[in-house]
Amino acid sequence: MSKVTPLSGFPEFLPADRIVEQQFLDVIRETFELHGFASIETRAVEPVERLSNQGEDADKEIYGVRRLAAGADEDAALGLHFDLTVPFARYVLEHSGNLVFPFRRYQIQKVWRGERPQEGRYREFTQADVDIIDSGELPNHYEVELPLVIADALRRLPVPEFVIKVNNRKIPEGFYRGLGLDDVTSVLRIVDKIDKIGPEKVVERLMEAGATDKQARLAVQLADISSTDTSFADQVRALGVEHPTLDEGLEQLSHVMAAAAEHAPGLLMADLRIARGLDYYTGAVYELYLVGQESFGSVGGGGRYDALASDGKTTYPGVGISIGVSRLVHRLVSQGLLKGTRSTPTAVLVALTAEEDRAEAMRTAATLRGRGIPVEVAPAAAKFGKQIRFADRRGIPFVWFSTENGPEVKDIRSGEQVPADAATWTPPEADIRPRTESTQLDTTTQENS
Amino acid sequence: MSKVTPLSGFPEFLPADRIVEQQFLDVIRETFELHGFASIETRAVEPVERLSNQGEDADKEIYGVRRLAAGADEDAALGLHFDLTVPFARYVLEHSGNLVFPFRRYQIQKVWRGERPQEGRYREFTQADVDIIDSGELPNHYEVELPLVIADALRRLPVPEFVIKVNNRKIPEGFYRGLGLDDVTSVLRIVDKIDKIGPEKVVERLMEAGATDKQARLAVQLADISSTDTSFADQVRALGVEHPTLDEGLEQLSHVMAAAAEHAPGLLMADLRIARGLDYYTGAVYELYLVGQESFGSVGGGGRYDALASDGKTTYPGVGISIGVSRLVHRLVSQGLLKGTRSTPTAVLVALTAEEDRAEAMRTAATLRGRGIPVEVAPAAAKFGKQIRFADRRGIPFVWFSTENGPEVKDIRSGEQVPADAATWTPPEADIRPRTESTQLDTTTQENS
Repeated sequence: MSKVTPLSGFPEFLPADRIVEQQFLDVIRETFELHGFASIETRAVEPVERLSNQGEDADKEIYGVRRLAAGADEDAALGLHFDLTVPFARYVLEHSGNLVFPFRRYQIQKVWRGERPQEGRYREFTQADVDIIDSGELPNHYEVELPLVIADALRRLPVPEFVIKVNNRKIPEGFYRGLGLDDVTSVLRIVDKIDKIGPEKVVERLMEAGATDKQARLAVQLADISSTDTSFADQVRALGVEHPTLDEGLEQLSHVMAAAAEHAPGLLMADLRIARGLDYYTGAVYELYLVGQESFGSVGGGGRYDALASDGKTTYPGVGISIGVSRLVHRLVSQGLLKGTRSTPTAVLVALTAEEDRAEAMRTAATLRGRGIPVEVAPAAAKFGKQIRFADRRGIPFVWFSTENGPEVKDIRSGEQVPADAATWTPPEADIRPRTESTQLDTTTQENS
Repeated sequence: MSKVTPLSGFPEFLPADRIVEQQFLDVIRETFELHGFASIETRAVEPVERLSNQGEDADKEIYGVRRLAAGADEDAALGLHFDLTVPFARYVLEHSGNLVFPFRRYQIQKVWRGERPQEGRYREFTQADVDIIDSGELPNHYEVELPLVIADALRRLPVPEFVIKVNNRKIPEGFYRGLGLDDVTSVLRIVDKIDKIGPEKVVERLMEAGATDKQARLAVQLADISSTDTSFADQVRALGVEHPTLDEGLEQLSHVMAAAAEHAPGLLMADLRIARGLDYYTGAVYELYLVGQESFGSVGGGGRYDALASDGKTTYPGVGISIGVSRLVHRLVSQGLLKGTRSTPTAVLVALTAEEDRAEAMRTAATLRGRGIPVEVAPAAAKFGKQIRFADRRGIPFVWFSTENGPEVKDIRSGEQVPADAATWTPPEADIRPRTESTQLDTTTQENS
């Protein structure tokens, strides 16, 4: 067996950091359920033909999957899903007869992307997605509701200030068409590189692709427009480009901005640079950023997709947003902003003075567990000091001793040791489970326990 | 895009059944944490060389993973993990400097096996594993503790009567060596087929592999021994075979049976037919069965592995058991024994009489959610009857109306409609969340909500 070496792009948490991730996932799940979203999980693999042709970001990144022992002609080609939207659309088509629409679902699973690993870019990561899919028509008010759900989840978590940037695909599409640039996808992909290569290079590339200087500069000007209210629409109109699709996009995005301002002022920012690398979006598109950490990239995103789920007869339009949970938690943990209060759920170590006492210690442990207190029994009989060190190294706050005077429990932080009865003794609420501790975090969010 | 067709061996739950699976996973996690096991997740992929050569069951079943866009020389060969023990052993080696031993961990993740799909055999399924790994030496008492943890989890779940069958690898190994059959692995693999092909065919195959008639018959007789107490040891000794490894195995298994009888009478059955298809087990091996449904196969299992995690200098012996959650839940759901009480978390639908009232309805919903009640707002303004039908089709028990007399809430099952204030009204506890309903189930376990 060769030496164990980490696989780049496949990060794993140590136990104390995993506690932070679990608490994030618990809060996100709880919020999604409070908003009436049902949980589903889809299989990890889809036929490659369903995964491919979903956009530039997706195509290069698919991991193929094949039985090592497979014959050359066996199995349709399968790939690991790179997001949870494409599998969800397939799930809806496959199970449409057993679902009721509009169907609100959340889905928390791993996804895989064969990207070049770099900071914050992983080849395997956990996403938490929330989507609403309808049959036939999807009302626009869901484009407002979904960012509010995501904001509700994040507000319950110890995360720094965040903003959801929103655009509507119809705005660039209508604008480009109004300009006479009809290869919308190509133009979008070039403009999407603006943060990486700068506006001048974007103009150059657009011209290489056939745009005039004026067309190229207007496309770049559009991408520069943003506002925290509905004033983006006037800025767009001031550029003098007209197209019915543009009007539709401006109207829809204005509605989203106005309604969001009523329920969650400051949550959304209209930013016409937001594109999303996936081709299936047709209306609103969202990107979630930590304020002041935009250069790290988005920690979530999504949008409206009108034609992704269609069986030829019926179309199921949807809208959804995803939180990049791994990305977010790895970021906050690696910045030292969050950590677990201990590396184990155990609140109480039942010490053993002799191996013959193990059965009795196991009964004590069972009594405490029956009252919701996480307990483990010492691995071996050992002296007082060794038992304390065992607990201390794991952050276990209490050690339970059997003494001549009966059972006693010691808080190893304060050193206080008191008589205790397993049927009634309870540790302080804050010590029962490990918690997430936030340090230096500029947020009003309470710690979640 | 081609038609959507299910992939054989990759089952997916509908929302109401997923609620059952979620509740199983929640109870299992809660139990593991009460017993002081820390959660980890490992990446889905491991180098193929680490996955292979783990036994007959594993070798044919590995799914290879490779970027579709990869160059011919790119990447070490990766495969999807087929269990959670091999990745856990690798995790321990990789992170040993940051862990404290003995390390108690649980891990709930998908695994993938390229088996021929058949009833209860899946190519992708969720396992819940609990293991203890130590550095250097692993005390034998953990071989008793782990089945007790699994039993504690299952007792909190609405599952039929179960039994954990246990053996010790040293018993067949010592017995075969005492008989003069030194290719232990081959003999074990042939004897392991006894339930499929019957004892006579096993004798035949053993003789084809070089055993004498007497050796073959004794090997089959060993596999026939079982007991619910320590009497299996006398039955083995009556066969007249002797070997130090056999003595060691009999002693260890007797200890496990005796200690388990003290804490959980009837939980364990010594069954010397239990083999487990994986080569890494070296001591206790376990298989978990539903009583009377043995022909369905095991719904969990595990064992002790002394040499799986070793870096050449240090060895980390471990013992663990896994619950095949997908297998178990699919079985009980498909038998009609369990179902979710509804297909959505939503307890209250806030009805809309006019689209202009949406903002107000959203505020009502937010108030109820703030008090822990899952709520959704109607997708569109509609008449009374249509709103009721919307709730009814999803199993949502309550509809909230805005009436001339102020807000009222209707229990759509009884038809009762009463005035209600979103700041104080609460549904009955049993209606707040969907629950798992068990029908016809011969068990004393309470429903878990």
